[in-house]
Amino acid sequence: MTVTKGRFITLEGGEGAGKSTQLRRLAEALAARGVEVVTTREPGGSPGAEEIRALLVSGETGRWGAVTEALLHTAARRDHLERTVWPALESGCWVLCDRFFDSTMAYQGYGLGLGRDLIAGLQTTALGAFQPDLTLILDIAVETGLRRAASRHGGEDRYERMDVGFHQRLRDGFLDIARREPERCAVIDADADLDTVQARIWSEASARLGLAP
Amino acid sequence: MTVTKGRFITLEGGEGAGKSTQLRRLAEALAARGVEVVTTREPGGSPGAEEIRALLVSGETGRWGAVTEALLHTAARRDHLERTVWPALESGCWVLCDRFFDSTMAYQGYGLGLGRDLIAGLQTTALGAFQPDLTLILDIAVETGLRRAASRHGGEDRYERMDVGFHQRLRDGFLDIARREPERCAVIDADADLDTVQARIWSEASARLGLAP
Repeated sequence: MTVTKGRFITLEGGEGAGKSTQLRRLAEALAARGVEVVTTREPGGSPGAEEIRALLVSGETGRWGAVTEALLHTAARRDHLERTVWPALESGCWVLCDRFFDSTMAYQGYGLGLGRDLIAGLQTTALGAFQPDLTLILDIAVETGLRRAASRHGGEDRYERMDVGFHQRLRDGFLDIARREPERCAVIDADADLDTVQARIWSEASARLGLAP
Repeated sequence: MTVTKGRFITLEGGEGAGKSTQLRRLAEALAARGVEVVTTREPGGSPGAEEIRALLVSGETGRWGAVTEALLHTAARRDHLERTVWPALESGCWVLCDRFFDSTMAYQGYGLGLGRDLIAGLQTTALGAFQPDLTLILDIAVETGLRRAASRHGGEDRYERMDVGFHQRLRDGFLDIARREPERCAVIDADADLDTVQARIWSEASARLGLAP
């Protein structure tokens, strides 16, 4: 669990913040500079974790209790780390991950009200001290994000159907995480066109990771 | 999580100890005395937990890392408690469960070497202070148990294929758990015919739970 060769970068944020698009763009920018990049996502990212994801993303809201849901996310995360992320970092790759443990803290800890202690305890039990080198939190107003998310299609929208209060707790949760861990987390204002957000991300990432601009 | 109306009894032990048969007999004996009994099992016992069970019991040994496996068992357990066990206890039923958290401690903690602290931490995070009123640990020599298990059929035999050293750590683990928690746990010598083991179980259960013999 002390993997140090590559860098581990996570993208976080609520629905419709543009994580997937920006992750792809960041991967391309890094690859253009000769960095070997692996992109992945949670929940999922390894065969076992994808099977757990299938349990998590389908079905009705409330299918799982919040504690069960946090445990399933953590189980998927552990498998994803062992099978995908840690081997890639060991081999010197940089790993870019769409959602990681801050999503469990934000969704189950803040959004569903389990609180920080339970989620943090689970995280330590399952992952030890492992954490991302950099976490980019894409921040956007709840209404704007939900409007963007609604314009996409696809059935994996359990959280999008939750009420606005939930999404506000989620956004506040991500911002609180960033306040508590400013060395690891950078908040990116995601309420702009794709090129502008991409430039903001590159500016933060290159400065924090010591890359040439 | 402070359910007190019914009683919660768990049966534990290695492969081939006779848990399922004895659980059925104990349930019949209690029902004959007018107790309303619910029998269940882990992993599983609720629709969601049965889906998690399907991930756990199929496939090759080593499909999941030990930490992931412990997390999946704990997720299934939480769902089982919320959807099946706690509601039944609340309504005054006695719940008899084939395997519970001691199996996670024995298999992943002792057998696969994760240690007591990790499993105990996970358990507290997920279940709080909830625990069985009585745990019956059916103890049998490893070779005898494996011989019995091999004479059954069915495909859910991932652990039966593990080496004898693993099963010895498992047996020692269950006995260590009983030594640490003598108020909750009773060790039953299961190396006898079914009627004899049943009588031993009834003797312990009736004495400890205040039932007429």
